[in-house]
Amino acid sequence: MVVEGKSHRTIEASSDLTRVTIIDQTALPFKFKLIELKSLKDVIQAIKFMKVRGAPLIGVTSAFGIALEMNNDPSNQSLMDAAFALKESRPTAVNLAWAVEKMLEHLKTINAKDRAKTAWFYANQLAEDDIKTNINIGRAGLPLLKQIKSSPLNILTHCNAGWLATIDNGTALSPIYQAVEEGIDIHVWVDETRPRNQGMNLTAWELTQAKIPHTIISDNTGGLLMQQNKVDCVIVGADRISIDGQVCNKIGTYLKALAAKAHDIPFYVAAPLSTVDKKFIGKNQPFEIECRDPNELLRIKGLNSNGIISEVKIGMSNAYNPAFDITPPEFISKIICEKGSYNPDSIGALLL
Amino acid sequence: MVVEGKSHRTIEASSDLTRVTIIDQTALPFKFKLIELKSLKDVIQAIKFMKVRGAPLIGVTSAFGIALEMNNDPSNQSLMDAAFALKESRPTAVNLAWAVEKMLEHLKTINAKDRAKTAWFYANQLAEDDIKTNINIGRAGLPLLKQIKSSPLNILTHCNAGWLATIDNGTALSPIYQAVEEGIDIHVWVDETRPRNQGMNLTAWELTQAKIPHTIISDNTGGLLMQQNKVDCVIVGADRISIDGQVCNKIGTYLKALAAKAHDIPFYVAAPLSTVDKKFIGKNQPFEIECRDPNELLRIKGLNSNGIISEVKIGMSNAYNPAFDITPPEFISKIICEKGSYNPDSIGALLL
Repeated sequence: MVVEGKSHRTIEASSDLTRVTIIDQTALPFKFKLIELKSLKDVIQAIKFMKVRGAPLIGVTSAFGIALEMNNDPSNQSLMDAAFALKESRPTAVNLAWAVEKMLEHLKTINAKDRAKTAWFYANQLAEDDIKTNINIGRAGLPLLKQIKSSPLNILTHCNAGWLATIDNGTALSPIYQAVEEGIDIHVWVDETRPRNQGMNLTAWELTQAKIPHTIISDNTGGLLMQQNKVDCVIVGADRISIDGQVCNKIGTYLKALAAKAHDIPFYVAAPLSTVDKKFIGKNQPFEIECRDPNELLRIKGLNSNGIISEVKIGMSNAYNPAFDITPPEFISKIICEKGSYNPDSIGALLL
Repeated sequence: MVVEGKSHRTIEASSDLTRVTIIDQTALPFKFKLIELKSLKDVIQAIKFMKVRGAPLIGVTSAFGIALEMNNDPSNQSLMDAAFALKESRPTAVNLAWAVEKMLEHLKTINAKDRAKTAWFYANQLAEDDIKTNINIGRAGLPLLKQIKSSPLNILTHCNAGWLATIDNGTALSPIYQAVEEGIDIHVWVDETRPRNQGMNLTAWELTQAKIPHTIISDNTGGLLMQQNKVDCVIVGADRISIDGQVCNKIGTYLKALAAKAHDIPFYVAAPLSTVDKKFIGKNQPFEIECRDPNELLRIKGLNSNGIISEVKIGMSNAYNPAFDITPPEFISKIICEKGSYNPDSIGALLL
């Protein structure tokens, strides 16, 4: 996507295959800052501290993490250690494990001396595939938007499942970008998405760059807007989908799904098939919900009166900070993936 | 309630009846700061900028506003102007209009020369009545808590309907305070309550003062907690209740009510009968929802690294900031008031 007149992806390998450049997403929307990752350790830190985030993007970033480590030590042990450390860095997003497994498949039968080169090749291929996948998600989602006859079309989204969550184009926002290109009049309600404010910080920033009309709302507001007929549909991304169509996504998604159901508003989940965990039946076993540092809720970053990015402490008691919740399939109108849009309970069949 | 070893109310008249002392609630939880209001203008500013907030408290504060103005000019015109200006200061909370009407009733037949003294008398009486009412709300709510056999009893609350929202004791928190006094083991999930964070700032502070175990959560978290059976009941306050039992309360209440219903968890609303608008049938006409400054969402106050209260700008796009939403009666298990606990659709009958 275009930022300040220049085309960008969220992650790009250097031409000499020694480092990758990412957008530091913790500095947005205040500052557009590119940083270089030069080692596996850099990659793991960037994932843990959410300088890169979004299930598809952390998948591809972890592939580049393996490539960086193969430059350094291409032994079997090093490969296995890197894979393990990356999978531990964020436990919920299945794309991360999926991308690491893909890399292991490609690399385990390659001689150590050729591993680095091969790793960079496949990491780059995963990035290219992600972009194609997301364009196809957009194509699959576009007819669902077109069938709603409101102008403007008011779409509510939670968290950030835009191009910043992927390599480019986004998942939940991909149909929106395509609809706007086709001249459809769209307005997006952007859930702030506490505690890390990915809606306010990232989605609003993306939509500003793309000149798409949007309004930030507190996460509490969606119910009222639906009561007032101000929401035509909801589109969100996903971090993990079980084969029976349960969707693990950013905390708060479930509350919006409940409200959409109560008001008979379409609720769409847009995600690549790599988000579907084919080993996992949601109704039989609980999802592992990542709990993050309570300080993510109790502290917040913004611009101080001098225009400097600065953090303030906003809460003084203990806090609990689970990062995801589960939306059961009966609340989901369609799951939109690169192959089309499907009833949630039939998503698992696509992987057979 | 006790703060730093000393008993306080949220508003107290000076013995010479020339000013009232309030707790500046915009400074909490960072600083416990008492300020004096010396004029009607001070009172209106305090209400508008939410130095005092909470439907019962702004009702009583507006009564003191009239008393202050009667000191200054006890004419009929002055009385009517004061009443009008106070009602405009926050349009949604019906207690405000109710308290102003009560004062007009008492004062309109009184000679100008006796008006000031009479006004102070009735404003003080409203404050005393509020305290009794809230103790009775606690008594009415206590059996509802006792009938849930969980230990600890996990209660979720939204916004602040504690003693800070009233003169003392609180509404939604009143049964909790009484239950804790009876030795019931309680843990409170405190919704942060964006955008003004009354949960994080006020409810958490109140519960800390009262040494009641509690945990701050983002407003997005309640759905997951209910999925995980970690919420035994929900109690909230109300800003306006229609005679057919529709509850207008802090934005986000409705999303929690939807979730509670989906998980078969009792959802209680605790409010004095003065919150019931006897002229208002919710199903026939929309509630007037106050929309506040978008900067309440886009800017936030906290302690900077030097421990100084400081504001940062956290959002860079437009925002929409409605303050309330509506919870229909079918989502409410009981409305708890000073006369007992009632099915929401029978609350109007109490006023007949």
